[in-house]
Amino acid sequence: MSTAVSPLAPPDVPEMPVIAGVRLATAAAGIRYKGRTDVLLALLDKGTTVAGVFTKSKCPSAPVEWCRARLKGGNARALVVNSGNANAFTGKTGKASTTLTAQIAAKAVGCSTSDVFLASTGVIGEPLDATKFDGVLAQLTETATPDHWMDAAKAIMTTDTFPKVATATVKLGKAKVTINGMAKGAGMIMPDMATMLSFIFTDAPLSAGVLQSLLKAGVEDTFNALTIDGDTSTSDTLLAFATGAAAANGAPKISRASDPRLKAFTKVFQQILANLSEQVARDGEGARKLVEVVVEGATTKPSARKIAMSIANSPLVKTAIAGEDANWGRVVMAVGKAGEPANRDKLSISFNGIRVAKSGARDPSYNEKEVSEAMKAPKIQIKVALGLGKAKDRVLTCDLTKEYVTINGDYRS
Amino acid sequence: MSTAVSPLAPPDVPEMPVIAGVRLATAAAGIRYKGRTDVLLALLDKGTTVAGVFTKSKCPSAPVEWCRARLKGGNARALVVNSGNANAFTGKTGKASTTLTAQIAAKAVGCSTSDVFLASTGVIGEPLDATKFDGVLAQLTETATPDHWMDAAKAIMTTDTFPKVATATVKLGKAKVTINGMAKGAGMIMPDMATMLSFIFTDAPLSAGVLQSLLKAGVEDTFNALTIDGDTSTSDTLLAFATGAAAANGAPKISRASDPRLKAFTKVFQQILANLSEQVARDGEGARKLVEVVVEGATTKPSARKIAMSIANSPLVKTAIAGEDANWGRVVMAVGKAGEPANRDKLSISFNGIRVAKSGARDPSYNEKEVSEAMKAPKIQIKVALGLGKAKDRVLTCDLTKEYVTINGDYRS
Repeated sequence: MSTAVSPLAPPDVPEMPVIAGVRLATAAAGIRYKGRTDVLLALLDKGTTVAGVFTKSKCPSAPVEWCRARLKGGNARALVVNSGNANAFTGKTGKASTTLTAQIAAKAVGCSTSDVFLASTGVIGEPLDATKFDGVLAQLTETATPDHWMDAAKAIMTTDTFPKVATATVKLGKAKVTINGMAKGAGMIMPDMATMLSFIFTDAPLSAGVLQSLLKAGVEDTFNALTIDGDTSTSDTLLAFATGAAAANGAPKISRASDPRLKAFTKVFQQILANLSEQVARDGEGARKLVEVVVEGATTKPSARKIAMSIANSPLVKTAIAGEDANWGRVVMAVGKAGEPANRDKLSISFNGIRVAKSGARDPSYNEKEVSEAMKAPKIQIKVALGLGKAKDRVLTCDLTKEYVTINGDYRS
Repeated sequence: MSTAVSPLAPPDVPEMPVIAGVRLATAAAGIRYKGRTDVLLALLDKGTTVAGVFTKSKCPSAPVEWCRARLKGGNARALVVNSGNANAFTGKTGKASTTLTAQIAAKAVGCSTSDVFLASTGVIGEPLDATKFDGVLAQLTETATPDHWMDAAKAIMTTDTFPKVATATVKLGKAKVTINGMAKGAGMIMPDMATMLSFIFTDAPLSAGVLQSLLKAGVEDTFNALTIDGDTSTSDTLLAFATGAAAANGAPKISRASDPRLKAFTKVFQQILANLSEQVARDGEGARKLVEVVVEGATTKPSARKIAMSIANSPLVKTAIAGEDANWGRVVMAVGKAGEPANRDKLSISFNGIRVAKSGARDPSYNEKEVSEAMKAPKIQIKVALGLGKAKDRVLTCDLTKEYVTINGDYRS
C-alpha cells in the first residue's frame, strides 16, 4: 500500500465548522488495521432527514442493501462507517452482520434500527465480525462531539493518501446554513479496498424528498462523471443528512424541490459534491496527473458522456498521459470505440488548450515541443470537438501509472 | 519498446508449408523502423477469392475503408501490408495514400486496383508516404516465393515480441487442402502501434461468400473473444484468401456455406483462428500470464460474454493476476458492474480449478496456500458459475503489469 500523499492533494485543508445536530466520534476497533481508527459514528439529532444514492452493481454489499431498504423512512439518527472490511460478498453472514451492527448502534443511541445507516469499505469476501462494535459504539456515543471532522474523514480511509473534506455556508431564506462533506475513494470506480464513500451533512431544514432530489441531480455531473479505472465498486455509497437545526435561526423549512428559495443552496450543495469528487480523482491510486476530459460538439449530452468516459477509461490514453505524451491517436481510438456518432474527418483534439489535430488529421500548426512542455503540468485537459452538434460533457479521471499496478498487484498479499 | 520475447510465447514454431497460388516477399522500405523489414507483399494467383472482417471503430483507418469497399468484388490478386504507420486519422491524405499504394501494387502485379488489399499498422495520425512503395513493390513481385512465411509474419510486427503463424491440413472432399495463417497484435484491442492484423490463406476452392461465412462465424469465439486492454484499434483487419489451387488435386469447389463437405474444413479453419488469437493474447503487451475467463450458468451466451469481458477488461482483476493474488472480490465486482443478470448469493468462483467462493460467500473449504501455489502458473483460468441458466462463454486475456505501463507510457517519445 502506498503511504506517500498524492502529489495532487489540495494544498489547503479547510477548517471544518460544526453542524448543529451532528456529533462525531471515531475509534480503533481493530477490524483489520492496526494502530489506526477504523470506525466512525455520526450521531444525528431527532428530526434529521436522509437521502442516498448507491452503486449500480448487480452484486451490492450488505450495507448498501441495508441503507436502500431504510431510505424510504426518510429519517436518520446514526451513521456507522467502518473501514478495513466491505462486508460485501459475505452471503447470509453479511446480512446478519448489518442487522447486528444496527442493533448495537440503535441500543447505544436509543433509536430504532430503521434510523441507523451503515457503510463499510475494505476487503471483499471476508465476514465482518459485528460483535467488534459491541461496547465500542456505546462508548462513542459518550465521546461524540460536534468537531472531529478531520478525524472522521481519516477513520474511513483505505488506500486514500489524504482525508477528503469540504465545507461551505450559504443563505437559505435569511438564515445562514452550513454544508459539510467528507469522502473516501481512490476511485468512484475502484478496488475492493477503495470504494467511494461520501457523507454530506447540513443544518438546513430540508425534507427527505428534497434532499434526495438534490443528491440525484447533484451526482450526475460530479461523482457520476468520475472514473479512476472503470471498475465499479460493490459498495459505492453517498448519503446526505439534514438536521434542520438551522430552523432555530429562521431558516425556512423546504419540502418541495422546486422551491425557489432553494436555488443558492442547490448551487453550493453541487459545489461541495464537485469539490469532493475532484478530491477523489486527485487521490486516484498511483495518480500523478489529474485529467479532465471535455467532449463538445456532440449530438446529445449522453453521447458526449459516453465518448468522454471511453477516453477517460482507456488504458492507452491514461498511460500516454502518465508518459507526458500528447498521443492524440489514442484519443481518436477511444472516440472510435465508444460507438457513438463521430466523424473522423471533423474531429479536433486539444491538450491543455493546444490543438494537435483538426478536421481528422494532424494540425499543421502543431508544435511538438510546445505540447511536450504543456504535458508536464499536473493537470491535463483533453478536449475533443466532434463538430456534429451542440452538446457537451466533462469527465474527471487520472493517469495510469506503474504505481497503480504496484498498489493493486501487491495489495492483498 | 520491449525487446525480450514474451515468456508466454509458444515453445514450438510450426514449419509453414507452401500454399499453391500464394507467393510472399518482404522488404525494408524505411517507413519508420531502421534495420528491419516493414513491407509484406502477398501475390495471389488469378481466381483467388477474398473475405474480411474489420474493426467496429467509428474512426477506422484509411486501409480498412479501402478493403471494405473492395470486398464485394470477391477477388484478390495482391495483399500489401506495412508496419510502422497505421495510415489512420490522416484525413484526405490517408485516402490518397491508399489509392496510390494500390495503384503502385496493381501496376507491379498486373491487375486491377480493385483486386489489391491493404493493411497498415503503426503510429496513428502521421501521413503515410506511399511513394516509398514505388519501386519496392515492383521489385518484390520479382523476388516473391511460396515460402517466406516466417519472414512475412516478422515484417508485419510492431510491439509484438514474436511472429505468430499457424498451419493445418484437412481433407476437402478427397483432396488434402492446407490453411496457413499469420497474425500480429499485442491485443485485439490495442495501442496505436499494436493493431491486430491477421491473414489466412488456403488453396481450398471456396467462393468469396463461403469464405466470408467461415470468417464471420469463426471470429465470434476467437478474435472477438479476446481482449488485452479494452481499447479497440482503428485498424483491426482479418482477411482470408482462397486460391482454389487444390481444385487441381480434386478438391471440390464449394459455393454454399451449408455444403456438408465443408464440415471438417470449418473445424480446422476455426482452430487456426483460435490458435492465432491465443498467440495474440500470449503476446499481450507486458503479459506474464495468459488468462482464460469462463462464465457458465448464464441466462444467455451474450450475457455470459458480457460478464466475461467485464472480468477480462477489469484493471483490478488483471493487476491481481499479475500479483498472483486469487482476489475473488474483484471478480465479484466485475460481475456486478457488467449490468447483466447475476445473483450475488448464487455465485461461485474458481481459480485454476480451485473453488474459492460459492453461494455468494467464501468457500469454507478454501485453502489460501493451495490457491497461492496455483496462481504461480503461467496460465490462469478464472471460472465464474452464475447459477442462473445454462449458457456459457469464454474470453482470453492477459494480466496487467508494470511493463504494460512502461511500454505504453514511454512509447512515442
